Amino acid sequence: MLSFASDYTEGACEEILQKLAETNRESLPGYGMDRYCQSAARKIQEATGCPEAEVYFLVGGTQTNAAVISSMLAPYEGVVAAQTGHVSIHEAGAIEYTGHKVLQLPEKDGKIDPADLQEYLQNFEADANHDHMVFPGMVYLSHPTEYGTLYSRKELQAISEICRSYEIPLYLDGARLGYGLAGEKNDLSLSEIAHLCDVFYIGGTKVGAFCGEAVVFGEKKNVPAHFITRIKQQGALLAKGRLLGIQFDVLFTDGLYERLGRHAVEMAAALKKGLKQRGYTFFRESPTNQQFVILENDRMEQIEKEVSVSFWERYDEDHTVVRFATSWATREADLEHLWEILDRIEAEREK
Amino acid sequence: MLSFASDYTEGACEEILQKLAETNRESLPGYGMDRYCQSAARKIQEATGCPEAEVYFLVGGTQTNAAVISSMLAPYEGVVAAQTGHVSIHEAGAIEYTGHKVLQLPEKDGKIDPADLQEYLQNFEADANHDHMVFPGMVYLSHPTEYGTLYSRKELQAISEICRSYEIPLYLDGARLGYGLAGEKNDLSLSEIAHLCDVFYIGGTKVGAFCGEAVVFGEKKNVPAHFITRIKQQGALLAKGRLLGIQFDVLFTDGLYERLGRHAVEMAAALKKGLKQRGYTFFRESPTNQQFVILENDRMEQIEKEVSVSFWERYDEDHTVVRFATSWATREADLEHLWEILDRIEAEREK
Amino acid sequence: MLSFASDYTEGACEEILQKLAETNRESLPGYGMDRYCQSAARKIQEATGCPEAEVYFLVGGTQTNAAVISSMLAPYEGVVAAQTGHVSIHEAGAIEYTGHKVLQLPEKDGKIDPADLQEYLQNFEADANHDHMVFPGMVYLSHPTEYGTLYSRKELQAISEICRSYEIPLYLDGARLGYGLAGEKNDLSLSEIAHLCDVFYIGGTKVGAFCGEAVVFGEKKNVPAHFITRIKQQGALLAKGRLLGIQFDVLFTDGLYERLGRHAVEMAAALKKGLKQRGYTFFRESPTNQQFVILENDRMEQIEKEVSVSFWERYDEDHTVVRFATSWATREADLEHLWEILDRIEAEREK
Amino acid sequence: MLSFASDYTEGACEEILQKLAETNRESLPGYGMDRYCQSAARKIQEATGCPEAEVYFLVGGTQTNAAVISSMLAPYEGVVAAQTGHVSIHEAGAIEYTGHKVLQLPEKDGKIDPADLQEYLQNFEADANHDHMVFPGMVYLSHPTEYGTLYSRKELQAISEICRSYEIPLYLDGARLGYGLAGEKNDLSLSEIAHLCDVFYIGGTKVGAFCGEAVVFGEKKNVPAHFITRIKQQGALLAKGRLLGIQFDVLFTDGLYERLGRHAVEMAAALKKGLKQRGYTFFRESPTNQQFVILENDRMEQIEKEVSVSFWERYDEDHTVVRFATSWATREADLEHLWEILDRIEAEREK
Repeated sequence: MLSFASDYTEGACEEILQKLAETNRESLPGYGMDRYCQSAARKIQEATGCPEAEVYFLVGGTQTNAAVISSMLAPYEGVVAAQTGHVSIHEAGAIEYTGHKVLQLPEKDGKIDPADLQEYLQNFEADANHDHMVFPGMVYLSHPTEYGTLYSRKELQAISEICRSYEIPLYLDGARLGYGLAGEKNDLSLSEIAHLCDVFYIGGTKVGAFCGEAVVFGEKKNVPAHFITRIKQQGALLAKGRLLGIQFDVLFTDGLYERLGRHAVEMAAALKKGLKQRGYTFFRESPTNQQFVILENDRMEQIEKEVSVSFWERYDEDHTVVRFATSWATREADLEHLWEILDRIEAEREK
Repeated sequence: MLSFASDYTEGACEEILQKLAETNRESLPGYGMDRYCQSAARKIQEATGCPEAEVYFLVGGTQTNAAVISSMLAPYEGVVAAQTGHVSIHEAGAIEYTGHKVLQLPEKDGKIDPADLQEYLQNFEADANHDHMVFPGMVYLSHPTEYGTLYSRKELQAISEICRSYEIPLYLDGARLGYGLAGEKNDLSLSEIAHLCDVFYIGGTKVGAFCGEAVVFGEKKNVPAHFITRIKQQGALLAKGRLLGIQFDVLFTDGLYERLGRHAVEMAAALKKGLKQRGYTFFRESPTNQQFVILENDRMEQIEKEVSVSFWERYDEDHTVVRFATSWATREADLEHLWEILDRIEAEREK
Repeated sequence: MLSFASDYTEGACEEILQKLAETNRESLPGYGMDRYCQSAARKIQEATGCPEAEVYFLVGGTQTNAAVISSMLAPYEGVVAAQTGHVSIHEAGAIEYTGHKVLQLPEKDGKIDPADLQEYLQNFEADANHDHMVFPGMVYLSHPTEYGTLYSRKELQAISEICRSYEIPLYLDGARLGYGLAGEKNDLSLSEIAHLCDVFYIGGTKVGAFCGEAVVFGEKKNVPAHFITRIKQQGALLAKGRLLGIQFDVLFTDGLYERLGRHAVEMAAALKKGLKQRGYTFFRESPTNQQFVILENDRMEQIEKEVSVSFWERYDEDHTVVRFATSWATREADLEHLWEILDRIEAEREK
Repeated sequence: MLSFASDYTEGACEEILQKLAETNRESLPGYGMDRYCQSAARKIQEATGCPEAEVYFLVGGTQTNAAVISSMLAPYEGVVAAQTGHVSIHEAGAIEYTGHKVLQLPEKDGKIDPADLQEYLQNFEADANHDHMVFPGMVYLSHPTEYGTLYSRKELQAISEICRSYEIPLYLDGARLGYGLAGEKNDLSLSEIAHLCDVFYIGGTKVGAFCGEAVVFGEKKNVPAHFITRIKQQGALLAKGRLLGIQFDVLFTDGLYERLGRHAVEMAAALKKGLKQRGYTFFRESPTNQQFVILENDRMEQIEKEVSVSFWERYDEDHTVVRFATSWATREADLEHLWEILDRIEAEREK
């Protein structure tokens, strides 16, 4: 079945497959101490313009969020996030499982508004009872957000300044960062992100790898003490760390990561254009690889017989929001196929 | 200094002091196995009209909330609470510390609206991705709420029915239950609460005891397995359980608990009347012992030099919400003294 | 029934009862901010010869252990304790509940042997795989131990030096400290303990109070950041902190704490002497208020009909170890009564 | 450099590499809902003779132990393990991080002795104070153990019977199960293991896969409620579950898993023989792929310049225990190379 269900429905890009095969019989140390992890880290230092960055490779996104957040928070602290942030809703309480509260702010286009953050932190400081409250100890952003939207440079600068004035680390979840860097009208480079955030991760799973996320601690070098032990303690230390090192080494060779991102966003732009031409209503305007469309429930059911998309949320009694996602693996032929299906369905409906 | 700062600023009612002295040299087993705990439990079974109830005594409110909630939730579940609920904000993340999320609903007069609860549970069930979300595993109410308000019988019945239809236990935090039972227009008896909720606690600390909260598991008898061990594990098992047993035995003898509640609410009614006569603006209408008043900041500062009240929240640039609390220990003379101070301040301000 | 079951079977010493009554109607701030907590802290600073000490009051022992240990350990650290230490066995996993391992060393007379500690720490440092292990982050001693034994000054000095050379804080659980200070041949003063340990607690519950333990952070002033918030988060912050402050203020006035300790140990010495004269076999030699006796099971059953003692552990098929505990509340008449009972039982058995 | 350092130093067996390439562009659902996971599960049901088994795929061993153990224990329970068990020592406190104690029994050849287990459980039940202790809620075995040893059928039967009589689930950590099934004198089949244990896992990471462990809940079907949500909560749910499904599907096709195991054990037998012929002293007798040798420290240093082995533990002042591990990837040429190196070193030493 034709699928626009998500950006993790295929395996890995060919370059990764090939490198895994080439290096397969090399005997390498475990737990991320191999030369591919080291090489990948160096390439990421270069790509982020942050030669002093420290880079760690983990397997998946929820795991990375839990490991980074819980390791950087003091026990009496929580993490500030948009109410629609991945850690707020879709990680089965992984942050609370580590003993920390997610302190939710309102979302605007899936993002935290700098003014809301400023007000929240100011009120907390002013509250005479705040010793009985959870202290804000980190700010979490996702970029792109869960609605495919992007922080502008100005927004990220504003949030970064607020965080620094309150001495609270800023963490950016880049599960789909490749698709953000290639986003329409995006004005944030990887290097700017590395310098405005204290820690962030570059998503591999959704951008061409079998698995893997690269955590980057930037210029402040504020890696939690004994971070490897903490990763192990949380069951997140991969024995054959090579699997992650090799993949990121490939992704950060010759601009592959950027190319994969660009391709998916071009496919998404074509998808958006085609859907708009056909009169579909968009739930939110997204400049990246995820597109959110409001469908009448009966039309949705008809489409889903031939095209796999994702349920996003109930819109009203009669309508549902669904997500169409492109990825590094989407082909032009997939779009052609989609138009053929949609046009046929519409023709049938008109009868 | 004259104090209306809270309902836990004095020691314990005289009857408790006397009984502690009388029983002091009796040699009794520890950890709540003594005859006073047993006698208090029997009296609470009677007062709640629930002869099959199981009663446990803990020291304080946050501790009780953490012990009850964490013991009744499965690991993948969270507790549903109003966004202003005590567990949501003012317990320093004690629930998250046990690994569970507080799932926040909007507050209306400090309460959960049954319609909001119904909608939330319905949406959760319908959400195709809910395996990646925290499951609602308990509903938490405070009664009186953090704003002194009370659920009506109709509201509690509605919430109870919703909980039962979704097979989710209903828990009521009665830190100030005595002041709720005596509340103006209150139409909920202790027995009705015991039958509509699955578990609740009767607050002692704020209603005449040095310390102590009585947790009541009602007719469903759904006490968590090895609850004593769980209480111990959370550091909440008092060695000299007698201290709690004796106090609750006294409070539930000859209607003392009710009398203490009634007295505080009468004092609060007089307080409210006097403040209204003097033109003070109320932030919320409260039928119980806590009264919330909006004060100009400079007036507040002047008052606070002679009367201890509690900062509640910032109202706007120039105004603050403060709480005046009465209790079992408030005397008519205290009110007289308050009027004398306030009237003098106003006279000075007018000059 | 005559009871030697434990040292927490009576209420509180008369001086405490009286002071609670005297201060009962004073309006005082909550959460340990009252003048009695402050006064008690000052008296403890004096008694420990540590004017810079910071003192916190908690309700019970397990709670105190969990709060102190979890707040002072980094997430990747565990606490080193004797395998018979209270935190190792008899706290229902309260330490593990906070996410930390208890790293058990062999016990010698209930104590940690400095040589064992040294070897353990040395091996840990030398282990090439220790990044995959729990780091030792604190050493826990109980004094008196669970077998009533005491560290000598030389032993505590040796352990303290080892801890300091490895930069690991030393914590002493003084649930029965009053009985240790008065112990036969004890050569450790309160001031020496305060200077050799980094943090310790002075037990109130078992030495004359209704409840309460005073945590003392000594000259290093290494109080965990936002310790009050951590205490609140663990459900251990008493609203009416006065209850603890008043009791410790009384205990540390005019040497009362020492007197209570001395009395119990004198009673224990008389108990030991009487039991030895009667030919009872001791399981361990204890210089403090707990005495461990090996009884034939049938004799035990007979005795327990008239005297309450504590099961300690199975000795063999036919014998059990039981504990006789004296306390501040034991009276000479109780001993007379005991002899009368034991002698009558022996006379009957001989028939 | 020649390596016998561990069994996870190479990539994956060729059959896996090939299948990953073949299936790479198939669009498959995430989170383990794909057809390869289903096919792998069916093949494992067949191989274990347990058609009703439920099978889950996780990424790594520590993660699997934490997810399974924490999900099957009640909050007041701990897991019983040998003091040398992987969960006891080498997982950085991952079990304690989930709030549960590891209840350590003495090890005999790395194994739990059934008699010790029986005694422990019996004593726990008999202990009058066990409400203040951690309840044994699961028994954990590793097979092969951390010393390469194996439980005999008789031993596993005895342990299984004890567990069933106490109604405690039995869990077997099969990180190296393939090497156990092929072990010298091994008399336990996969099917017997599946029927004697309540849950176990079949290790992939160390037996030919890039990563992956297959958790098998046997005939009792006691999968924890909402296990997928718990896995997600612990950050252990792989987005591209296909990566695990495909690998296990390959491993359980045409007896590959067995063949890989057999090869490694044959290599280990040749290794053992060659080392014994050369007069090396073995620390423990191991029938599987890990061989433990005691080396003089200076000889060790010389060898390690040319052969990578693993530090295991300090033996005494002058000696160290090292591990030589073979695996599915070891070649006869590697052994030849080893003999050449060792013989040359000995010749040099004799000069």
